Amino acid sequence: MPDTVKLAEYLFTRLKQLGIGAIHGVPGDFNLTLLDYVEPAGLQWVGNANELNAGYAADGYARIKGVGALITTFGVGELSAINAIAGAYAERAAVVHIVGTPDRSIQDGRILVHHTFNDGEFGRFAKMAAHVTVAQADLKDPRTSPEHIDFVLTQCLLHSRPVYIQVPVDMVSVPVAADRLQSELRLPLAEPTTYSDGVIEKVLEKIYQAKQPTILVDGESRSCGIVELVQQLVDVTGWPSWTTGFGWGLLDETKPNVYGVYRGRFDTPTVDTFIQGSDLVLFFGPHFSTTNSYNSTSVPKTEAGIHISHTEIKIGGQIFRDIPAKLAIAQILKKLDPSKATAYATPPDLARPHVESYTEALKDKPITQASFWPMASKLVQAGDILLGETGSASHGCRDFSLPQHVRTFLPVTWLSIGYMLGAAQGAALAQRELIASSQYHGITSARTILFIGDGSFQMTVQELGTIIRHRLNVTVILINNDGYTIERVIHGLKQGYNDVAAWRYLQAPSLFGADEGTFTAKVATLGELQGLLENDAMSKVEGFKMVEVIMDREDVPVGLMTWLLEKQLKTLN
Amino acid sequence: MPDTVKLAEYLFTRLKQLGIGAIHGVPGDFNLTLLDYVEPAGLQWVGNANELNAGYAADGYARIKGVGALITTFGVGELSAINAIAGAYAERAAVVHIVGTPDRSIQDGRILVHHTFNDGEFGRFAKMAAHVTVAQADLKDPRTSPEHIDFVLTQCLLHSRPVYIQVPVDMVSVPVAADRLQSELRLPLAEPTTYSDGVIEKVLEKIYQAKQPTILVDGESRSCGIVELVQQLVDVTGWPSWTTGFGWGLLDETKPNVYGVYRGRFDTPTVDTFIQGSDLVLFFGPHFSTTNSYNSTSVPKTEAGIHISHTEIKIGGQIFRDIPAKLAIAQILKKLDPSKATAYATPPDLARPHVESYTEALKDKPITQASFWPMASKLVQAGDILLGETGSASHGCRDFSLPQHVRTFLPVTWLSIGYMLGAAQGAALAQRELIASSQYHGITSARTILFIGDGSFQMTVQELGTIIRHRLNVTVILINNDGYTIERVIHGLKQGYNDVAAWRYLQAPSLFGADEGTFTAKVATLGELQGLLENDAMSKVEGFKMVEVIMDREDVPVGLMTWLLEKQLKTLN
Repeated sequence: MPDTVKLAEYLFTRLKQLGIGAIHGVPGDFNLTLLDYVEPAGLQWVGNANELNAGYAADGYARIKGVGALITTFGVGELSAINAIAGAYAERAAVVHIVGTPDRSIQDGRILVHHTFNDGEFGRFAKMAAHVTVAQADLKDPRTSPEHIDFVLTQCLLHSRPVYIQVPVDMVSVPVAADRLQSELRLPLAEPTTYSDGVIEKVLEKIYQAKQPTILVDGESRSCGIVELVQQLVDVTGWPSWTTGFGWGLLDETKPNVYGVYRGRFDTPTVDTFIQGSDLVLFFGPHFSTTNSYNSTSVPKTEAGIHISHTEIKIGGQIFRDIPAKLAIAQILKKLDPSKATAYATPPDLARPHVESYTEALKDKPITQASFWPMASKLVQAGDILLGETGSASHGCRDFSLPQHVRTFLPVTWLSIGYMLGAAQGAALAQRELIASSQYHGITSARTILFIGDGSFQMTVQELGTIIRHRLNVTVILINNDGYTIERVIHGLKQGYNDVAAWRYLQAPSLFGADEGTFTAKVATLGELQGLLENDAMSKVEGFKMVEVIMDREDVPVGLMTWLLEKQLKTLN
Repeated sequence: MPDTVKLAEYLFTRLKQLGIGAIHGVPGDFNLTLLDYVEPAGLQWVGNANELNAGYAADGYARIKGVGALITTFGVGELSAINAIAGAYAERAAVVHIVGTPDRSIQDGRILVHHTFNDGEFGRFAKMAAHVTVAQADLKDPRTSPEHIDFVLTQCLLHSRPVYIQVPVDMVSVPVAADRLQSELRLPLAEPTTYSDGVIEKVLEKIYQAKQPTILVDGESRSCGIVELVQQLVDVTGWPSWTTGFGWGLLDETKPNVYGVYRGRFDTPTVDTFIQGSDLVLFFGPHFSTTNSYNSTSVPKTEAGIHISHTEIKIGGQIFRDIPAKLAIAQILKKLDPSKATAYATPPDLARPHVESYTEALKDKPITQASFWPMASKLVQAGDILLGETGSASHGCRDFSLPQHVRTFLPVTWLSIGYMLGAAQGAALAQRELIASSQYHGITSARTILFIGDGSFQMTVQELGTIIRHRLNVTVILINNDGYTIERVIHGLKQGYNDVAAWRYLQAPSLFGADEGTFTAKVATLGELQGLLENDAMSKVEGFKMVEVIMDREDVPVGLMTWLLEKQLKTLN
C-alpha cells in the first residue's frame, strides 16, 4: 500500500470495507470531482432522480446491508435530503451522508457563490445537519482527515444512525496518509465486567423465576446487531415470542412459538391477555414510539419487563447503563441453563385464525381491505423484502404469515409518506448485492414487494425510473383508494384537502422507461385479484412489475384504523 | 366584528388581507384541523404532491403576487420543504411557512409520538427553520398569538423572506382577540430626514455630473417594491438601461433605451465596454451572487456605482444605512431636475443583433441551442411568465426580446434544480388570480411557459399533476439533451454520473391526469420546430401543453456555457 492516497480514495475505500457496494445520490457541481472516484473504488453509482429519494434509498439500503451512503451537493442537495436523514436518525439506519462543498478558498474568502444565502456564510447547513446526525466532519485538513473519517464512520455504525461528512472540492484529491486503511474499522466492543456479570445474574434470576415468560422483539434489535442471537434464545427457550411492527420479520415465523406482530389492545384478547399477563417479557431492542407500540398499549407492564437495548438494560424499571445489547444477550445465552427455565409443553394456541377469504362465488365482489390482505399474503416468498407504506397498506400487510428471511419495512416513528418507494429502490439493490455475493441465507432469487397508497406514491414517484434503470426486482402494488385514507380516518373524512390528483397510475412504468411488455395489471374485483395471484408472470420475481388495486376510500384494515374511522364517523353524526 | 375569533381564523384572515388567494401544501395529521379553516376563510387549498414542490410553488406564487403561503406537517413535512424555504430566503421570496404541530399537552408531556426522534424533544425542527427564515412564532399562548402573528408577517413582507409559524393542533380553534384584524397590517415606512436628504443630494450631484450614465436593475428591486419607480426613472432620464438575470423582465424592454440582460464579460464587447466605461451606474436592488453577476464581471466598478438596496445606499463604496430603496428612489424622482442630467440624443446602438435563424433550406437540420432560442422567442406574449430552469434553458432563453409585462424566473443564487417546475405551478396560479381580479395590466389572457432540462424535470415531475388538476395555463418545453448538460460542462463531460434515467417524457401528461387530446409534441429538426411554432394549438394560452425538444448532450447556448464547455474539452485532450 502506498504511503498516501487521495482523500476521496481513502473515504471510498473505507465505505467499501464496511460492505457498501453502491452509493446513492445526485450529481451537483460541488460533488462532481468526488464522483470521479466512486466507480474506480469498486462502488456502483446509483444516480437518483432527486436527493430526498436518494436519502430514502440509502436508508433502505442501510437497513438491509447494515450501512449505506449518499452523496449530495452543498445547500440545495443536502437540504433536499435532510428529511430522509432525519428519518434514518429516528429509526436507526446507518447512513453516511457525504456532501460536496465549495473550495476552501471560496469558503475562507466568503465568496458569494451559488447554493449560499449570498452572504458569505458557509456554516449554516452543517448546523442544521447536526440536529439529525450523530457525528459530523468537515474535511478541511489533510493531516486529520483520515482519523476524522474513521471516527465519524465508527459513530455511524455504533449508533446505527446517520453521519455527515463535508468534502470541499479542493480536498477531493489531496494526499492523505494511507496507513490506517491497512486495518479495517473495528467497533469498540464491550467486555464482561464484574458489574455486567452481576446484572446478567439478575436477568437470569428473573428468567428462572418466571412462570409465564414471553419474548418481544423490537426493531432496534437489528441496529443492536443481535438478531441471530435473539433467534437462538427464542429457539432455546421455546417461549412464545412476538415482534413489534418495527421488529417484524426479524424472527423466524415458521417456528411454532413465533406469532407475528403483537398489537397491544388492538390484538385479539387472547394474545393481549397472555402478554400483559406475563410475569416476564424479555424485550429486545425496544423502540417506544406511539405508532410502533399501538399508542403504548403493546408496552409490557414495567414490573414484568426486561429491556435490552443499545447501551443499557432496564429490569423492572431500574436502569443499568453501559451494557450493550450484544454483550447482554451473548452472556445470557452463554450462562443460561435452559433446564432451570419454564418450558411450555407445547407452544400455546395463540395464533390468529387463518382467514381464507376467496371463493368463486365472490368473484364479482369489489376488493375490500378485509379480503385483500389475506389473499395477497401468498405473494411473499422466502427472502423477499416487504414494504408496507404508512397508511392502510402498513396495517393490512401485517396480517401476512411470513416465510423465512423476509425483511419488512413498516411505519415506525418517522412516518414520512413516500419514503417506502425510495427505500424499496435501496433495499432491492442491497438484496441483489447480498444474493450476488452469496450472503443471503442460501437464497438465490428474491424480490422486493412494495404496498403503497396513491397519496404516498405521488410523493416520490420518479424513483420508479431508478428502479427500472437498474433493473431491480421490485413489484409495486398500488392501493388506489382515491386520496389520503389514513388522513381521512384521522380527521376530515369528507374534506377535499384529503383528495389527491387523479392519475392514470399504470402508465407510470412506461413513462419511467420500463421495457415494453413490462407486467402491469389493474384489479377491482376479487375474481380479478385471484386471477392475478394465479398468473405465472406475477409470480416471477425478476424485473419490475406494477399492479393497481382499486379499493373504497373509506375502507380500512381491521384494527387501529377501523377504531380511528369509527371515531371520525361519530364526529359526522 | 366579534370580540374573539379562532386562532386559525385570525391567521387566515391576515393572509387574505395580504392578498394571498391560495395556500400550497400537503395534509398531515398535525395540520388537518387547521386545513378545515382554509376554504371557509376564502382561500383556495392547492394540495401539492409533496412538500418540497409545495414550497417551490409557494415561492413562485410569492414572486408574482408579493407573498405566498404553505402549510406542512411537523417534522416530515416541514423538513421536506426546507430546501424550498432556503431558496426563498436566498432570493427573497416572501413565503409564510405554517406548520401544524402536536398538541401542547403532547409536547409538554414529552410523549413519544410519530414525526419525532422518539426522545421527547420537540424543538429541533424550529431550530433548523431559524437558519432559513427571518422570523418565527410558536403559537402556544392565545393571549399573545395575534400580536406574534402580526409581527412575523410584518417581518416577512419587510424583508421579502420566509417566516415560520408553528400551530399546535389544540391551538387551532382557541379564541383569540379579534380587534387587531380591524386594521390591515401596515409596514413601517421610512420618512425623509435631514440625513437622508443629504444622501439623496449626493446621489443627485452624481447624476448631474455623469457624462455616460447607465441604469442597472437587479432582482431585489422587486422585493424592495420599487419596480414601477425605477421604470419611471428609466423613462425620465432616457438613460441606457439593463437588467441582471435576476432583474430580467422588471423593465419594459419595448422601450428603446432598455437592452435586456447585461452579461458582464460574456456580453458583446460593445455593451461591456459601454457599461464598464460608465462614470455612473445607478444599480437598483443589487444581488451579487457569482451566478447572477457572471462571476462578478457584471458588477459595475466601485467608483461609478450607486447601489440602492433594501436598507441602504452605497455611493462609490461608501455605505449610508437606513435609507430603504423605496424612500431613496421616491426622493430621487421627486427632486430630480432632468434638464440638469445628461441626455442621450438618441438611445445608443447597443442592442444585440436580431438573429433570424430559420429558413426552409434548414428544415431537416437538427435543432441546436444556437438555432432554438431565437425561434422559440416568438412564443412569449405580453403578460406571460417565463421560467428558464438552471442549466442550458436559463442561458438560452435570456436571448429573448420580452414583450411588456413578462415576468421571468432565472437561476440567481439558490439554483436548486427542479425548482422551476414547482414555481411554475405557483406562478401560474398567481397569474390567474391577478387576471381574474383585473390587476394584471389590463391583460386578460396569458400563460406560464417553462423551459426545463430533462434532469431538472425528473426532480419534481409529479407537480404536473397539480398543474393539470387546477387547469393552469402552463406550457412545459422540455429540453431533452440526455442528462445533466450543465454538470457535464462543469465537470465530467463523458462521465456516467451525469446521465439520467431514460424516460418517455411525453407520456407524462397522460399519467398525471391530463385530458385526452392535451397538446403534446416532440421536435428534433428545425422544420418540426417551425411547424410547432406556426401551430395554432400551440399558440393558444389555455390549459396545459407539453413539448419535447431533442438536442445534443454536448450542445450549449453561446456565452458562459460555451466558455465552460471549452474548458472541459481541454481537460479531455
